[in-house]
Parts: sequence; structure tokens; C-alpha cells
Amino acid sequence: MTDAATHARTDALLDEELRLLDAYWRAANYLSAGQIYLLDNPLLREPLKPSDIKPRLLGHWGTSPGLNFCYAHLNRVIRARDQDMIYIMGPGHGGPSAVANAWLEGTYSEVYPEVSQDEAGMARLFRQFSFPGGVPSHVAPETPGSIHEGGELGYSLAHAFGAAFDNPDLVVACIVGDGEAETGPLATSWHSNKFLDPAGDGAVLPILHLNGYKIANPTVLARIPEAELVALFEGYGYRPYLVSGDDPAVMHARMAEALDLAMDEIADIQATARRGGRDGVRPRWPMIILRTPKGWTGPREVDGLPVEGTWRSHQVPLAGVRDNPAHLAQLEKWLRSYRPEELFDEIGRPVPQVRAQAPQGDRRMSANPHANGGLLLHPLVLPDFRDYAVPVDEPGTTFSEPTRVLGSMLRDVVARNPDNFRIMGPDETASNRLGAVFEVTDRVWEAERLPTDEHLASSGQVMEVLSEHLCQGWLEGYLLTGRHGLFNSYEAFIHIVDAMFNQHAKWLKVTRHLPWRRPIASLNYLLSSHVWRQDHNGFTHQDPGFLDVVMNKKPEIIRVYLPPDANTLLSVADHCLRSRDYVNVVVAGKQPVLNWLPMDEAVVHCARGIGIWEWASTDAGADPDVVLACAGDVPTLETLAAVDLLRRHLPEIRVRVVNVVDLMRLQPDTEHPHGLSDREFDSLFTTDKPIIFAFHGYPYLIHRLTYRRNGHANLHVRGYKEEGTTTTPFDMVMLNDLDRFHLVMDVIDRIPALRGRAGHVRQHMMDERFRHRAYTREYGQDPADINEWVWPY
Amino acid sequence: MTDAATHARTDALLDEELRLLDAYWRAANYLSAGQIYLLDNPLLREPLKPSDIKPRLLGHWGTSPGLNFCYAHLNRVIRARDQDMIYIMGPGHGGPSAVANAWLEGTYSEVYPEVSQDEAGMARLFRQFSFPGGVPSHVAPETPGSIHEGGELGYSLAHAFGAAFDNPDLVVACIVGDGEAETGPLATSWHSNKFLDPAGDGAVLPILHLNGYKIANPTVLARIPEAELVALFEGYGYRPYLVSGDDPAVMHARMAEALDLAMDEIADIQATARRGGRDGVRPRWPMIILRTPKGWTGPREVDGLPVEGTWRSHQVPLAGVRDNPAHLAQLEKWLRSYRPEELFDEIGRPVPQVRAQAPQGDRRMSANPHANGGLLLHPLVLPDFRDYAVPVDEPGTTFSEPTRVLGSMLRDVVARNPDNFRIMGPDETASNRLGAVFEVTDRVWEAERLPTDEHLASSGQVMEVLSEHLCQGWLEGYLLTGRHGLFNSYEAFIHIVDAMFNQHAKWLKVTRHLPWRRPIASLNYLLSSHVWRQDHNGFTHQDPGFLDVVMNKKPEIIRVYLPPDANTLLSVADHCLRSRDYVNVVVAGKQPVLNWLPMDEAVVHCARGIGIWEWASTDAGADPDVVLACAGDVPTLETLAAVDLLRRHLPEIRVRVVNVVDLMRLQPDTEHPHGLSDREFDSLFTTDKPIIFAFHGYPYLIHRLTYRRNGHANLHVRGYKEEGTTTTPFDMVMLNDLDRFHLVMDVIDRIPALRGRAGHVRQHMMDERFRHRAYTREYGQDPADINEWVWPY
Repeated sequence: MTDAATHARTDALLDEELRLLDAYWRAANYLSAGQIYLLDNPLLREPLKPSDIKPRLLGHWGTSPGLNFCYAHLNRVIRARDQDMIYIMGPGHGGPSAVANAWLEGTYSEVYPEVSQDEAGMARLFRQFSFPGGVPSHVAPETPGSIHEGGELGYSLAHAFGAAFDNPDLVVACIVGDGEAETGPLATSWHSNKFLDPAGDGAVLPILHLNGYKIANPTVLARIPEAELVALFEGYGYRPYLVSGDDPAVMHARMAEALDLAMDEIADIQATARRGGRDGVRPRWPMIILRTPKGWTGPREVDGLPVEGTWRSHQVPLAGVRDNPAHLAQLEKWLRSYRPEELFDEIGRPVPQVRAQAPQGDRRMSANPHANGGLLLHPLVLPDFRDYAVPVDEPGTTFSEPTRVLGSMLRDVVARNPDNFRIMGPDETASNRLGAVFEVTDRVWEAERLPTDEHLASSGQVMEVLSEHLCQGWLEGYLLTGRHGLFNSYEAFIHIVDAMFNQHAKWLKVTRHLPWRRPIASLNYLLSSHVWRQDHNGFTHQDPGFLDVVMNKKPEIIRVYLPPDANTLLSVADHCLRSRDYVNVVVAGKQPVLNWLPMDEAVVHCARGIGIWEWASTDAGADPDVVLACAGDVPTLETLAAVDLLRRHLPEIRVRVVNVVDLMRLQPDTEHPHGLSDREFDSLFTTDKPIIFAFHGYPYLIHRLTYRRNGHANLHVRGYKEEGTTTTPFDMVMLNDLDRFHLVMDVIDRIPALRGRAGHVRQHMMDERFRHRAYTREYGQDPADINEWVWPY
Repeated sequence: MTDAATHARTDALLDEELRLLDAYWRAANYLSAGQIYLLDNPLLREPLKPSDIKPRLLGHWGTSPGLNFCYAHLNRVIRARDQDMIYIMGPGHGGPSAVANAWLEGTYSEVYPEVSQDEAGMARLFRQFSFPGGVPSHVAPETPGSIHEGGELGYSLAHAFGAAFDNPDLVVACIVGDGEAETGPLATSWHSNKFLDPAGDGAVLPILHLNGYKIANPTVLARIPEAELVALFEGYGYRPYLVSGDDPAVMHARMAEALDLAMDEIADIQATARRGGRDGVRPRWPMIILRTPKGWTGPREVDGLPVEGTWRSHQVPLAGVRDNPAHLAQLEKWLRSYRPEELFDEIGRPVPQVRAQAPQGDRRMSANPHANGGLLLHPLVLPDFRDYAVPVDEPGTTFSEPTRVLGSMLRDVVARNPDNFRIMGPDETASNRLGAVFEVTDRVWEAERLPTDEHLASSGQVMEVLSEHLCQGWLEGYLLTGRHGLFNSYEAFIHIVDAMFNQHAKWLKVTRHLPWRRPIASLNYLLSSHVWRQDHNGFTHQDPGFLDVVMNKKPEIIRVYLPPDANTLLSVADHCLRSRDYVNVVVAGKQPVLNWLPMDEAVVHCARGIGIWEWASTDAGADPDVVLACAGDVPTLETLAAVDLLRRHLPEIRVRVVNVVDLMRLQPDTEHPHGLSDREFDSLFTTDKPIIFAFHGYPYLIHRLTYRRNGHANLHVRGYKEEGTTTTPFDMVMLNDLDRFHLVMDVIDRIPALRGRAGHVRQHMMDERFRHRAYTREYGQDPADINEWVWPY
């Protein structure tokens, strides 16, 4: 244990500045341990007794002293340079440390006045940690200064880079845990330095913290030779500074020196770039590799087994303190080794010398407005989306590629918001036909460029890397610090970031109930190259299931849009870009589809989110025989083509067409703020007529949304049922029984009066399916009557 | 374009062996291009005309020549050393190459006799590629020799290491694309060398193929200085050999030399380790960095723009061949540059010199049985799971930790199957209380070991790394090559591999319909540390939504089990370990829960998958007033406690308890092979009585499974509704209205006759909730009546 004698020696060896820094560190360590253990007696004014101890010991000590060490040293740098800086704590369970520092800096008591900066407040601070009704064990949304929770590991460095983009004066200090460093997303995040512009962006200072252990195992990066470690980070393009040891006196001096060097280098790199002096050479950004014992300054041994410096200090190093007097005594000795009586005054406030270690006002990392991005949010300067409308004189007679049309609008969003809007994508911006944006911006590319390259530059508002994790992590960091953006992806592969989406949605859910957290821009997904048009790619590229993942999150956060054509996509996109604190998922095709609605009707339809297409219906607004509902571009096409077939072959059938843009409208209004009332739902879908619903995704989702509705028993959903391969577009819908012919068969099967009478029509539809399949197999493409079909009325 | 003159120069420069190898390469390149373009005239016996060209040009040329180059050179190595080797093609769209080589080796015609090794077969081979009714553009399940599809990128290297574990004589050649190398999973997969035992495992030979471009962008690793590139891979622990250039004559010699060196090193490393001579030093395995132009040997320029060596050769380099005579002429010149007349004889079969380049029989990579793992599958030697049963004299009166009980059984599975069974987990095997396995095995750890380490060794059957991607990828590779395993994970974080699960399920769906693919062991997930018991961790760790992702895949592949106690978990685990070609998801807690069923009853209950617990019911087998259904350990506890409350407070109510172990039983038998018939369902749930269903996951899932059932309108589901934080177990169920008191309130609310009469009971339940919450907030733990409740009858 680092006991009083060690601390005294530290005092003697350090100069005044570092001696005070060490006092701050001791205070933070004391407060971290206190949160894990103490229910009462927070300043150890009396000898520790079992009833002072929490009944359930939760939380994690192991990572805290290292995080506190970094925090204390970063504070020194901030004060010395008046540096604008935020921190990101990657290691799991860093909550005690982040909370301790926010309290020491005074921020915690400003945000939560009941947790005052005195003995009573300290008692509350300790008690609330991991306590029912209290605060979580992670660096959660409730923690001032945080934009990164560290619950699910792997995303700290991507968040850090996202925060730094277009923030030229900001340095993001990112502590990467060596456990987290084993994850895939983190392993590729190091390459983010190929996408950071030293002139227009801020800097990221990664501090890889090797404390050697995860939960029960050592970590890979802590157990490779130092030469490999250095080579790895040089290979990633950094200049690593190693700071290694366990003697606080030595370590304070080393860390201060390394940080000064790193900050000087950052300043040099930026100054050179900003005066135009880089000559296209990618800078070698500094990073720090900090190697300290896990659970540093905690119990060295417990019950004869080593604890400090091993995995045994991961969680609660002394577990039996309420029942085991020896453990209790050891805890007291440990806590007293920090000399709390020197660190806190008689009312329990940090003494002035400790308080003076913290920067002032917004310079405190726990109070930096970048970590509460809504404070800095400027609305996007948006063009009028109507200006990009495609003319539609008659529905369903001309074709557009919806994402290409959207690309023109996005081009102008990009141009008008040069420092406030970015588009992320895994090398699919052109493939998804948003290429118009390259008329006004480039793809950021800090690695080597060749003369044959197109639209690559050292700065730009489009970021492309073949990692959905990086796209998502960068964008989250960018949004959380108060900017705007869009993630465009192939639909199937957005599942790669299911878990990241979950965590961001959880973050938003919590922040919406924290009044001091200001709203941020929504996370906008544009999913294109969707399940129905994977002609090149086949079965691996067919998965519309992200919508099912999304729907499990809180309704107040989630929006899903399936615009059927170009004009509706424009209207939806405008709405999403203006919204706050949501996750918006927009599914839209890039292939030519029929234009259904002129812009004014598209606006009305999107505002309603769902509606009867009277021009396509034959029920004259009265009672239909059947409702054909559709959501998504391809299902809408097949539904309208089915209506055409019904008009020709069964003209006596009264058909109503309902199109759904906003999927949430299907839910009851008691479940989702966009939900239709039962009365509205019934007026659209009837309560007793068959409903054939052609859906873009897995059909179960529609049942899940509508099972409480009156008409649900009459609902029959067609969608993707996991059948597919490399084939033609029409063969794909046939494989999944979503094609126009099958929809007509479904209508016939669901209207009892038709069953006998329309047998010949049903047979004709089956023949048509066989004929089309045979043609496709013979000629490798869909017949002309499919490709050239338009709405003929 | 590499034209005839270049090829002639290549011939002159190469010795006989490499000259023949080059001929094989030209044949593979010809066949790859032919698949993309030709509908007819496969051997160019006549001048190329538009009608010879496919109407839709699909597929990807860019990666093919590099893949073919590697394949040809690996064949040389296999023949020279009689090497057992499989290949994994990581780059996307490698289908044309894999198919071309399988056909050249004769395997393709053996597997698909209609695609014979002659001109007619070649025509079929060309036509079927990316053609309706044909074969996909990726290295799909349909492709002989493949265990890795390369549709979703990032997993090649993890698959390769998985295949190599416990296969000491196998070398897995893994071609990693430089696009794929940007993904997170791939970036951390390089660290797999810290988990490969040179004595007991085979070897992986990574070939990083830098062709420089993704879809529309350059790649990061192709655009960093060579010094960084070398440092990066030395940092990852490899010895990289660079093979770089575009002159085939030079490149053949360089590649042959590099491969010989690499294979010699592999042999040395293995020989040293196997004679016990490594002294604990981790070997520095070789790897190859191959830098060649994208679309190598394809058109150099098209319409004045550079194509070979740029992203423009990613897909179809000459797109207008059917309409543009200049393009058609250029295509013909390109195809003829390979001199097909020298490569194929008059019946269209590869000439003997080309055929002789392929190894014989099972040595052909396209025919290697490791790539059709079911051929090599040995059933696990399983102990009798009943031997691990916990005694249960009375239901609900004793406690067990289910996963700890399972751990004892797994210990003996591990011990009895030393080369055939591995457990993967992200450092959670001990945390998930499976620690008994460490009585008989260790965790593989090839990095540095310290004296304080426990259960780390250079070989072992437990693999722990903080990367769910690696755990999943390794296990997939291990299963696909004919072995068995288990992936244990925290429930929430299994979402990290949603996308990988999707792809594996898709792979299984396709292979089940390919008779030549033999069944492999199921992919078994054990999800513990689940949503309801995150006392330490809070909201980020609460997500039971993986089940929703799983349910979107084909019913024939998917099984989901929610055993309520230790004995049912044992029975389920035994069943899963014996099964084939499924994905089994088992959700089971690690915290102490009541034991409900003695083993004989557990076996019967699990075999049925769903059943009435008569001992807990009060309807005497007759008509109940209400059905209380439950699935999952915590919901089962709360349901039984609710029944207890009902017995005490409303003894006149006849209650039936239904417990669900096998979630698929809820689906109609028309939807899932495990589904109950409507008659069976009705006999359990009634058609007219209220059903209060306490579910482990998001409640919608139960609705989705049962919406077609007669009783669905009476069904009321409680489950996780995205409410949670760091709090006590009972507070968690209260936050989500799944607690016993709320279930009683639900019963009262759903039985009209009770509404007025039982008002005081309802009020009492609400009071109980308030009282318990207040206690928790005050004392930080659940009251004794919750923690100590047992089934009292």
C-alpha cells in the first residue's frame, strides 16, 4: 500500500507545483474510494466502523487512480496554457473518478446543488454512487463533463476524433483503457489520424493507459515487448511517449514532462499547418502510453494475495469490510493514507491549494461546454428543400433516383454549413448516389494522395472509411459536441453498429430527462442500397432488420421513415435535419423509382406520415373491399402495380391504397408520440376489411406495431422473409412473395366472395409469376413489362 | 493492358516452373473475366459479338487477378510440400476467382457435374455467375473450398485463426483485402497471434493484399509510408515480407521466394515448438504484404481514363460492351491477351500443363475437407448432464447459481474433448461463473505471462479476449472446420456481433440446402449477466434485444432457450451441444435463483419446451380464471411470487402457471418446426382467459410470436421496457412493472369480476411497491422478504 511514508517521500521529491498536483490527486483518489465504500463518516472524523460501510459494495476501484492521475495532470496543462480541453474516459467503470473530479472542481455542486462542496455534500456524493436512486458506476450522461459513457467498450477514440473535427482550438484528451484497446472498433480508431486536418480541426491526445488487466485477465498490449508496442503505434502513425512506473514522485515528473512535450508538438503541428507550411505531409501526432499498476495506491495485498497491480483490484479490492475487522482496519489505513485532513477543511470543502489545481469556469473539463454540445448548437442553415423537387404532373409516370435527388439538396446543406455539418459513410457516398456533394466539398484524406485521385483533400465535409464503427463513432462525437451530420450506409451493414446505436439511444433517453443537458442534433441514418436492390451483391447484403433493433428503444427517441419516392425523401430529410435528440432512420433507394407525388402533396403526405392515396384508390372514399397498404419504395411500386392488375382483371373490387412514410404512425398514440389514435387508424384501415400490407422489412414488425388495432385480425403482411440471392429486382420480390401478382392473389384469397369467382384471375397471376421467372432465368434480366410499367391512369 | 507482348516477355524471363504457373494464372484470370462478361462464345472461337455479352454486367473484376495470383502461388507451395492448406478470401466479390480456380482444379465439376470441365461446362460456368438461378458474386456457401463468404467485410482473419486452432497440420492462407483491413474487427484480428499455439494449433499465413482501392476511395494501408506499414505489422508481432510490383515476370519470382521463406519459417516455428524448444518466447509468424494494381492485367485505360491500378477497375471495367463497338473490341483484345487457345484444349478443358498446376485430390484447396467441416465432424464425448443435477425435494426452496452448475458440466465436456471443443468469451468466463472449467484447462495466452497469473498457458480450451468480434469469428472458423464450441457473453453486448450472427445464419440457411455441405456443430451462445441483474453496471448493460435480431432469421436455423433454473439449464445445454446446423441462444442467469424442478421433471419440461406447472397452479387442471405465463429466470421468480400473493390475498382465483423454456414453441407450427399447434396452444393458454405473460426480454417479441393465436387478444406482456440504472435487482423489476406486486395488479385489472371487489388488494400491492422502493432508497438493498422469498407450499 502506498502509505503515509510513501506520500511523505513524494512530497520531499517534488517541487511545489507537483506537490500540490499530488495533493489534488490524493483528494481525487480519496473521493473515488469513498464513493465505493462509505455510507457515512465521509471525512473519517471518527474511527471507521462497520455501519459506515455501504451494505452492497459496488463499483470499480482498479481504473480510478490512473484516471485521476491523468485528470490532475491535464488540469495543470489547461491552467498553464489556458487550453480548451475536454476529456474522454474510455475505461469501463470510470464513474468514481469522473464524479470525484467534477466535485473537486465545483462543477458537480453547481449542477446538483444538493451535492454541495462540504461534508454533507461529500456524504451525499459517496452514498449516491451505485446506490438506488443515485448515480451509475460509469461516466454516464448524469456526469458533468462527459460525452462518453464507457459502459460498452471500444468507442472512446472515435468519439474523441468526432469531437475534434471542426473544433480547431479544442484538444480532446482521450484515455484509452488497455482492455478497451482489444476491441475491434478501438483497434481501427487509431487510424483516425488519417482523417484529422491539423488546420481546420482540433487535436486528439490519446493516452493509452496500460494498467495491465481487464476483468480477470491481463491485456494484450500490456504483455507485448516494448519494442512491439512502440512499433505498433509508430505504425499507426503516432509519436508515442512512454510514461511508466509506480513511484508517484517519479511518475509526476515524467507525466508532466511528457504532457508538456506532447502539447508543444500539437501546438507546433497546428501552427505549421495553419500558416500553410505542411507541404502535404501528414503530421505525426503525439500520444502517451501510460503504464501504472491497476488499483495504484490501493491495498497492495489482501489476505496474502497481491492486489495492487493485478486483476484483483479491478472491482472492490477489500470485499469483506463490513464483517471482517481486519479488512475494515485495512480500508481505514488505506483511506487515511491519502491524509484527508490535509485535503479538506473543517467544513469538508477541498482546501484552497487543492481547489486551485482546477482551472476556472468553462476551462474546467467537467464544465466545458463542448461536453454539453447543445449549449453550442447552431441550427443548420438549410436551403428550401422544395427547390430540389422533381416535377410530377401525373403520378407514377416518370422516374427518379431518390438519393441522387437528395444529393443535390445535401450539396447545398454542405455548402452552407462548412464547419457544422459532415456526412459519414463507409465508402458509399458515391455508390449511394449522393455524389453531388462533391461539387462543393471533398473527402477528408490525410494519407498520401495521388494525381489520379478525385475529391480527396486535407479538409472536407465528407468522411469515408470502410468502418461503420468509425463512421458512427465519429458522428456521435461530432453531434455530442453540438454539430450536425448524416451517416449513409448500405442497409444490411448498419447492423454492424447495432450495439453503438443502442448505446447512443440510451444516452439520449437519459439526457432528455436532465434539464442541464441541452438538446443536440439528431443522429440521422440514411440507409440506401437496400434489401430489394442487391442485384450485384446477393444474400449477404439483404437485411432490413435494423428497424427491428431500433424499435426496441424508447419511443420518445426513435423515428423511422420510408419515403416512397424522391419528393417525399426531400421532405423527410428536411424534417430530420431540423430535429433534435432523436435517432432518425430513413430508408430510401438509389435506383430509379417512379415519382408518385408532386412536392406540395409530398409535404402534406410526410406531415401526416400516413395517408390514403385517393388517386390510386377505387373505393371513391367509401367503404373499400380491401385495403392495400405499403411502406417503402419497392413495396409501393408493387402495390400500385397490383392495384393496376386489380383494376384490369377485377374492376368490381373497391380498393383503397394507404401509404405509410412514418412507421411510428402505426403504433397506438399511447405508445408513441407519433401514433395514430384508434379512431384515425380505423378510418384509414377499416375495422373489418382485409388489409394486404406490403412492407419493406421483415413482416413481423408491422404486426408488432399494430397488434392492438381493431383491424389487426384482418391484416396480412408481405415483406422480406430471408429469401434472396444475386438476381434481378423482380425475381427478388417474387422470391419473397411481395410481387404484384402475389399481392393480387393475396387479395383474392382474403375476400371470401372472390374465391370461387376469381379463380381464373388467380390462375393467371400464378402463370404470370412462372412466365416472369422463366424469362429472367433465360435472359438474365426482368421482362420489359416489369421494368417499364407506369401508373397508367 | 497486359497484352500478348507482355505475356511473351513474361514467358521468356521465367523458368519453366513459373512459366507454367503464369499459364495457370492466365487461365484463372480468363475464367474470372469470362464469368463477368460472357453469355456465349466462351473460348472466343469466333470474333466477339454483342450477343455473346451478358445483358446485365454484374460482378467485380478488381480483386480477381490478385486473388488468382495468390491461389496459383499457393498451389505451387502445396504441391512442393504436400501441404494441407485452405484459403480464405477476405476481399469482397472474390466469387469469380474462387469459382475459376475450383473449376480449373476439377472440383467444381465434381460437385456440380452439369458444369463440366469442357466448353459446354465453361459456358455454363460463365452464364451462371451473378445470373438469376445461378451463383452469387461472393465466395458463397455454394463455392467449393470456402468457409468465408466475404460479403460483409472484416472477419476473414478471425475465421482463419479459428480454422487453425487444434488443426496442427493445417496452414490457413488468408487473403486480407486492404478495404477490409480498415474495419474494426479486422484491425484487432491481427492480435490473434497472441492466442495461437505453435505446438497444438496450425498456422495462419496472412497475405495483406494492397491493391490500393475500395469502392471509390483509396485505402488507408496502401497510402501510408512503407516504414509505417512495416512498423505496424512488426508491432502486431509479425515478420512482414513485402512483394510489390506490376510486372508479372518479376512478381512471380518475388512471390515464390516470399512464400518459400514464409512457409520455411512456419515449419521452423512449429518444429521448434513441437520439440519443446521455444522457451516461452512467442514466435514471430511471417506474413506477406502483396502490393499489385487493382484490376491487374485488365484494361489500362478506358475512354481516356486510367482503369488498371485505380478504383475504376473495382467492378466492371468496360461497361458499354454490348452497345459500344470500341469497348467490345477492347474486351476482346483483353480476353485474348490471356491466350485462351494455349490454355484450353479443343474440348475446352484446361490443357494438361495447366491442370498439373493444381494439387491432387483433397490437397486441392477447393476440395480440402477442412473447408466442408461437417465431413470431419466428430460428435462431442458428453458426460451425462443428469450427473450435475442439483437435488430439488420441494420446488422453489433452495438456491443455485445456474451458470455455476453448468460450469461443472462444461468442465467435463472440456476434459473429454481436448482437441474438439473450445469456449470463447470476452473475459467473462469467470465473471459468468463458469470457472470450474479452469480445473481442467487454461486460457490460451501466448503473450507474456507473469508468476502472478492464474490459468494462463500457451495452450488451453478457453479463449478470452475483450473483443466479441474475435470470439465470434474464431468460433465460426472453428465450427466451420468441423469442431464444437460455446460463446459466453454478457447479454447486452452480444449486440456487438449482431451483423456477424446474421451472416453466419445466412450461411447456414444456404448450406442446409446444399447436400454436399455436411452438417456442422451448432453455434451456441450462452448469454449470462443478463438485463435483470446489472446491479454493478446499470443502463448500458441492459439490453435483451439480441433475441429480436435472432428471430428475423430462418426458423429452420434458430433456437432460443430461457431455462428458469439450474437443472433446466443443464438439460438445454446438453441438447444444444448435440445439435447441428443451428444457432442456439441460451439466456441464463449467474446469480442465485430458486431451483424449481428436480432433474427428471426438468428433462420432461425441456423436451416439451413449454408446460403447465401444476404444482404451482390452483386451477386443478380445470378452467383457470387467469393464466400466468413466464419465460426466463427472473420473470419466473416474480410470477411464482405473484401466484403466492394471489393465493394469500385472493384465494378464490384459479391460477394456471405456464412456463416457457423454448421460445419457439409459441410460434404456430406452420411458422417454426418447434411451434405448437393451435390446439396445443389453446389447451395451455385457453382461448378466452386473461394471460399475464412475464417475459425476460422486450415484451413485443411475445406479441410477435403469438399474434395469430386465438388467445392473443387476452394476452398482456410484461418485460423490459428500457427502464433501468445501477440499482437493486428488485428495483429493476419494479422499474419495468415486472415485479410480483404489479403482476397481481395486472391480474386484478384483467379479471372484470375482480375490479371492484379486489380494490383493497390492488391498493395493498401499490403500497407494497412504494414501501419496497423506499426501503431500497434508504438502505441500498432489497428488503429481506424479497431476497428470502421461497415457494412456501
